[in-house]
Amino acid sequence: MAQNIYDDPKFFAGYTTLRRQKIGLDGAPEWPRLRAMLPPLAGARVADLGCGFGWFARWARENGAASVLGLDLSENMLARALRDTADPAIEYRRADLDALDLASGAFDLVYSSLAFHYVADFPKLVAAIHRGLVPGGALVFSIEHPIYMAAGKIDWIDGPGGRRTWPVYDYGIEGERRTDWFADGVLKFHRTLATTLNDLIGAGFAIARIDEYAPTPKEAAADPSLRTELDRPGLLLVSARR
Amino acid sequence: MAQNIYDDPKFFAGYTTLRRQKIGLDGAPEWPRLRAMLPPLAGARVADLGCGFGWFARWARENGAASVLGLDLSENMLARALRDTADPAIEYRRADLDALDLASGAFDLVYSSLAFHYVADFPKLVAAIHRGLVPGGALVFSIEHPIYMAAGKIDWIDGPGGRRTWPVYDYGIEGERRTDWFADGVLKFHRTLATTLNDLIGAGFAIARIDEYAPTPKEAAADPSLRTELDRPGLLLVSARR
Repeated sequence: MAQNIYDDPKFFAGYTTLRRQKIGLDGAPEWPRLRAMLPPLAGARVADLGCGFGWFARWARENGAASVLGLDLSENMLARALRDTADPAIEYRRADLDALDLASGAFDLVYSSLAFHYVADFPKLVAAIHRGLVPGGALVFSIEHPIYMAAGKIDWIDGPGGRRTWPVYDYGIEGERRTDWFADGVLKFHRTLATTLNDLIGAGFAIARIDEYAPTPKEAAADPSLRTELDRPGLLLVSARR
Repeated sequence: MAQNIYDDPKFFAGYTTLRRQKIGLDGAPEWPRLRAMLPPLAGARVADLGCGFGWFARWARENGAASVLGLDLSENMLARALRDTADPAIEYRRADLDALDLASGAFDLVYSSLAFHYVADFPKLVAAIHRGLVPGGALVFSIEHPIYMAAGKIDWIDGPGGRRTWPVYDYGIEGERRTDWFADGVLKFHRTLATTLNDLIGAGFAIARIDEYAPTPKEAAADPSLRTELDRPGLLLVSARR
């Protein structure tokens, strides 16, 4: 079973101060890129793995999805999702992505934002998603980028000539990473970019597009804090088709 | 036109001391991985872009290829390839990958080792390769990894706790990189991993497999110098199908 850090009171209190949690999808700088990877939503049956507060579930319904199944391990997240949602075509269910079981061929789109890096067994997860999608169905997800996660650090260092530098080591050594982020010992799993893509291809997916999120010059000018994302990618977005 | 650094006497003198140039394919630690990505060679018509001394061309013929066209910009490399090759089914030709022109549908395999990062216009190159391949044909290539190339440095730094650390910055800023490697100002082009894969997909290729070369534990034990490749990938290998 995955670590349920979102139900750790200290973590949850910190996490809910994030802009992307306070104002939803538009508070996440990568959202326009992730949105651009989505297939047409009209009539689509959608599963959202790691649905959190239900921001995406509600947005998908507003944009034509026939139904959304939102899964999350956190009772805190699900309680607020239920509180904020009044839509009989959205169902929330508590589930552990380490033991995902989707009805066969029941979905046109499986979506996930920043959840898969908590999952230990990625091939198992990907096989379950593949079974759950109709042929031609789409998997669109974001994870922490392996360059960001490799060394298990979340701080910049002074590099050559005092240059702000992202430290990379142990990139090729996959497995557990522990970070202190709102709570101590948050457990994530580092996989190389090659492993992530090869696991998808091995399960029968075709890679449609990947995006190592970085701002455009216009975005970076509007929000200088995004310049760091040009120095090293923090997020990896992937679009694949069954 | 690409920079013809291989005909710079200082560069060429240094370059030819590399193990992979002295003993050929088996001198390159990534070769077994690249070889595993190749389609069956029996009867295949092969193009090798950046053929160098012709090591791969001769190996492909020994392994059943019907013919090999080896292209390189360097007169030094081609002269030695010609000297070392006695096989009427191998043709060497001087060519600039910035202006590649392959006969339409003339090849079953396009192969390239560590040449594409010298090419400025990758979409143009990829379109030319796509035209040159038969439907179902394979493109298998290696390049310097964008993590390796991003900061334009080729040296490790002391990171947190004195840890050997690879410096990453400017990953999202694509374009020219100049390094001093056997000669001053060797010109390469940094592209993100996303750009490399998306350009291939955009040209009509399906990504079959990628490999961010790292040694196995056995390989690292046999050659401790390879441990660095577990800290950050130096090479990216890609297999795609038209």
